[in-house]
Formats: sequence, structure tokens, C-alpha cells
Amino acid sequence: MDYKLRRQRLKRRLRRSKIDALLVSQPENRRYLSGYTSRDHTISESSGFLYIPARGKSLLLTDFRYRLQAEKETDLPVQLYTKGMVSLLKQLISASGIKRFGFESHYTLHSLSVQFNKIGENKKIEFVPLSNLVESMRVIKSEKEIDAIRTSVRLNEKIFNKIFRHLSPEMSELDVAIELETAMREAGAESPSFDTIVAAGNNGALPHAVPKSSHLGSSRSIIVDMGLILSGYCSDMTRTFMLGKPDKRYTDVHRLVRKAHKAGIRAVKAGVTAKEVDRAARKIISNGGYGKYFGHSLGHGVGLAVHEEPRISTRSRRKLKAGMVITIEPGIYIPGWGGVRLENMVVVREGGCEELNRDTTWLDI
Amino acid sequence: MDYKLRRQRLKRRLRRSKIDALLVSQPENRRYLSGYTSRDHTISESSGFLYIPARGKSLLLTDFRYRLQAEKETDLPVQLYTKGMVSLLKQLISASGIKRFGFESHYTLHSLSVQFNKIGENKKIEFVPLSNLVESMRVIKSEKEIDAIRTSVRLNEKIFNKIFRHLSPEMSELDVAIELETAMREAGAESPSFDTIVAAGNNGALPHAVPKSSHLGSSRSIIVDMGLILSGYCSDMTRTFMLGKPDKRYTDVHRLVRKAHKAGIRAVKAGVTAKEVDRAARKIISNGGYGKYFGHSLGHGVGLAVHEEPRISTRSRRKLKAGMVITIEPGIYIPGWGGVRLENMVVVREGGCEELNRDTTWLDI
Repeated sequence: MDYKLRRQRLKRRLRRSKIDALLVSQPENRRYLSGYTSRDHTISESSGFLYIPARGKSLLLTDFRYRLQAEKETDLPVQLYTKGMVSLLKQLISASGIKRFGFESHYTLHSLSVQFNKIGENKKIEFVPLSNLVESMRVIKSEKEIDAIRTSVRLNEKIFNKIFRHLSPEMSELDVAIELETAMREAGAESPSFDTIVAAGNNGALPHAVPKSSHLGSSRSIIVDMGLILSGYCSDMTRTFMLGKPDKRYTDVHRLVRKAHKAGIRAVKAGVTAKEVDRAARKIISNGGYGKYFGHSLGHGVGLAVHEEPRISTRSRRKLKAGMVITIEPGIYIPGWGGVRLENMVVVREGGCEELNRDTTWLDI
Repeated sequence: MDYKLRRQRLKRRLRRSKIDALLVSQPENRRYLSGYTSRDHTISESSGFLYIPARGKSLLLTDFRYRLQAEKETDLPVQLYTKGMVSLLKQLISASGIKRFGFESHYTLHSLSVQFNKIGENKKIEFVPLSNLVESMRVIKSEKEIDAIRTSVRLNEKIFNKIFRHLSPEMSELDVAIELETAMREAGAESPSFDTIVAAGNNGALPHAVPKSSHLGSSRSIIVDMGLILSGYCSDMTRTFMLGKPDKRYTDVHRLVRKAHKAGIRAVKAGVTAKEVDRAARKIISNGGYGKYFGHSLGHGVGLAVHEEPRISTRSRRKLKAGMVITIEPGIYIPGWGGVRLENMVVVREGGCEELNRDTTWLDI
């Protein structure tokens, strides 16, 4: 990928905003700009930072544990901190004549920002909280990135189909989740893109259900929501089905969700707002009488992160643009009964969208 | 576990610090105080917050997606936010007469703290950044918690041994990592406690290596660093071995690490500082001439989080206390050759420590 070009674009933006340097802490931004693949175990255990001056050479800052990986994966000089990142940052700033230093407000802990403020006071430097500077670059995908996402979607579908074929009512949710995640990694995925959801019956009424050791059973709705990370890029797909013959209630709910799903996909094109797309799908579920059982947003962007901009929600006025990649995933969740959710990924194009999914398992029933 | 008692202790602390209420955002703190097991996909995608007033009823705040799980797992009233947590927080604060409102500085994004400041200005409320208030309770484990950790350690060892027995040079690092993680989940672990490390030969020179599709090979050092989460509590163990007969260089390095490992464990008792323990192990590696190849801390606390207080580092003056659970994990990492790390977990006791590990695979060679 074009790490250097991306950094050049970012540097132009920094110069336009009169920012002398930016500290990139957000893991996907870091990867997007450098190719460094390491993730953070938690936000307080960073595996590194990019130091990007508006003019001059960018650096990758990390510690002893990640040195070899960082040197191997990026073309940037790697500087190690032995007494913490803040201490190294102070040296870099002192040596540079920087006056306005940007940091990522949406991936910087308050406790770290307090340390920044102290440096700022001592050295007469302004620390400028910035939001979504790199994210606003990431939100529009190049065709190369869309290819990478498509490959991730294909592999995810292939794995779903392989496991789907031999599901039986005696298997537990957990069995299926483990099989799916093992198959992902055996097929070369870096990892699942989120904890795989396999939720049967009542458990499916929890949109973020955790797989349990209870059996799938027959004549119960089964939601499988899964995705993987392949060469950095995420996929995300949900299918809902029954192992027995669906009864009328299930069929009605499923068909309503599918109708909303199709309406959402049909509404996607460059120029419409995210909330118009949300509304197109949501009104079908509301008109069907299930409005209060669809409590989450219709979708979200997908790229290096599985949840990223743009959010497709009732409140987002953001305009969709060509090259955005989003999910469309309406759902109906009925406590005591279960849930149905259907999710595909699409690329926003001028005048419409391109569906990334080919799998049609239990979409139209 | 005694969630209510823990909240009562916390509330006493709040009253002593003249804090009227605390917002708990850190996932393990949330679980420690409520039993709510949901984790955060990322810090900006929280699965909920605890609202703990110094006097009065605590609440669990979350959104639609987690409602059923939250209601099932905790005895706290669950309040849903539909327009974001901040909006609900404003209502709660307005209704309560709160003047000083605490938040967890070390698990609150700068961008969220900016929103807190705005509420504070509008409503004449002081938002007080707090650090490690709940962590300072978590750092000393009850015997019930130590039992849970011991059970986690035992299961982790059992899984290591099961896979270790049939390792062969033709297997890839990734094969082994997948087998280990699959076995963990099949055995009832919630998940691995961190991404399992299987690093052969040169890859072992990276303390945080990512398993690759390259073969284990024989006559190369193989580091396996693994842990799991069982009923919330983490384990963490590292073994290093060779599939062939070890040569002199390997034997020398391994024995030196083991000597440092034993010295570290021997140094642990209530009352010593963390840096004294670090020094006891580190000086053996330094005296052996490998000081510069041991670039990380000697260990860390383990509990609900796999990395928590206390840090056992060269700089930590923190005194160890009875009931702390820590790792001792010296290592030597030689670029171009590989690494050796040995890691056990111990409970700090008066006058010494209790080793939690029973496994002796390739410790003394």
C-alpha cells in the first residue's frame, strides 16, 4: 500500500492547519500510514506511535519489545523509548522548534493529555487535540483497498459456507463459534475482526450475544455474525436461519428484515445522507410493527477497523461518498423469542452501490 | 463474588475524597464492581458504564444491544442511553445535586473529557480525574480470587501440556497457536488472555512475536507464551524449549534465564519494593553478560486483567503486599538467534511467595 503517499497527504493537511507535528496513536491510523501491523493489547499498552512532522522525516516510536517487528514492517526510522513515550517526545519536541503539536483526541487517554499539558506549559508549546484527521482519509477507500476488502469478504463467506453445511441441532453455539474462528485463522486471517456471534433462540434477542454452551436446537432462529481480518482489512456478515422448518412467525419476521435490508441497500448512493439510508430500512420495520425491536443503527463503515466511519444511524447527517464501504444490517430482536439480523457489505458508488457479498444463504425465504 | 461489598468499600473511599459520584468506564473495574462480563470492542465502543454515587443506588448504564445481558448478570438497575452516554449522564447529574463528579482518567478518552468539561461549565460541576481508585482495590486479591486465578493457571498448564506432547518440527508456529487457543475455548475459557505467542528461532528474539506460518524446526529455541481467562480471571505462563537436543549456547542462555527466574521468585515477599525484585533477577542476567538483551520489565500483576498493577520494573518503588499476584518473567532476546523467556505466576505472601504454577516443563535443563 502507498504509505508514503498517504503520509504526504497528511502532511499537507497538517501544514494547512498550521500543525507542526502530529502524534498518531490510533492503531489502524498507525497501520494506514506506516504498514506497522502491531495492535494494542489495550489503549494503555500501546505498541507504538507515529511522529509525523509537517515538514521533515516521520518516525515510528516504540519500545524494546516491538523493535524488530517495527524495523521489518516499515520504512520509517524506529526510535525506542526506554523511559516511556512522553520522555522521548519531550526530547523530540525540544530538538525541533515545534510550536503547535497535534494529538488524536479520540485515541488519547485523559491521563496522557494531562502529561501533554505539562510539557506544553514548560516548553510554551500548544498541544492541539485533533479528531478524525487520518480517519477522514481512511473513510474513502482506494480501489486497491476495496480489492483487499472484497478478498476478506470472500474468505469470510467461504468459511461460513464450509461450517454452515454441517451444522446440526446438537452442536452448541460455542462449538460453532470455535469452528468458525479456527477456520479463519487456518485460512490465513490475522484474526476474527470481532468476537464471533452465534446466538440461537432467545440468546439471539441480544444483538451482541456471547456464544454459550447451549445447543443450537431446531425450530429456533440462529444468528451468525462473523468477520475476519485479512491483510489488515475487515469483513463483517450476518446470516440468520433455522435448522428446522421455519414457522410462520419466523418467516414473517425474517421476510420483514430482508425487505428492510434490501431497501437499505437500494437507498445507498453517493450524495445521500447516512440517516436517509437508515430511514429507508427502518421505516419498513416500523411499518411492519416491529420498530421498537430494532434498537441499533443500520450500519457502519468497514476498512482497517471493523467499525469505523461513517455510522449509518438515525441521527447522522453525513453524506455518503463514492469509495466508502459500509454494512447494511437491520435486525429485529424479541426478548423471550430471539432475533433476526441480515448483514451485507456494500461499496458506495455514484448513482448506487456495489454489493460485496455473493453469499445468498437464507436471504430470501 | 462480593460485588455489593466492593461497591460499599468504594463508596466509603468516595466519601473520604469528597467525590459525590464516580463514573466507572474501565472494563475490568466494571466487572469487579458489578459482575457485568461484557468487554469493550475498543475504548470508543464501550459496552457500558457504572454510575456509583457516594450515597444512594448505583446504576449500570448501557445501550440497547447489551440490555438483556446487563440485566441478567448484575443486580444493579440498568438504564439505557439512546442518545449517547453523555446525554443520560447530564440527566442523572441534574437530578442529583452532584457537585464533584469523578471519572477514570486512565480509561477516559480526551475527547470524552472535553464533553465532561462542557457539562461542568454549564452546570457548575467539577469533573475530577481519578486514577486507579478501583485498581488499588483490585491489586490485593481475596483468597476467593486467588482460588479463581489458581484454577485459571491449572487449566492453562493442562492445555499447554496436552499440546506440548505432540509438537513436531514440521508444525508451524501458527498451527500451534491455533491449537492452543482452540483447546482453551473448548475447555471453557472465555478467551485467551492475550494473543498467544509461539515463536521459533529468530522470531523468538521479538518479545511480542506474532505466530507465523514458518515451521518450528528442530535445534531452535521455541517460546510459547500463553494465558486464558476463566470465570474472569487470567493466567499467563511462558515456556521455552527445543525440539532437538539443545546445543551449548542454548543451554547456557536457558540456564542463565532460569537462574534469574528463580532469583526473582526468591526475592518476592510482602514489604520489598517491585524494583528490588526486578533487580534480583536482572543482575544475574547482567552479570552473565546478557544485560542488554533483557529489555523489558521482570513482571506484572495479573487478575481480571492480564496486565495490571503492580508493574515489576527497574523503576517501580511500589511495595509488594500480601495478596498481590504477579508474574516473574525474565528473558534474553538475541537478534538473529532467538530468545528464551520463562514465566510463572506467584502470590505475594508475608515472608515469601506462593508459586501458582506446578508445570516444570523445560524449567531446569
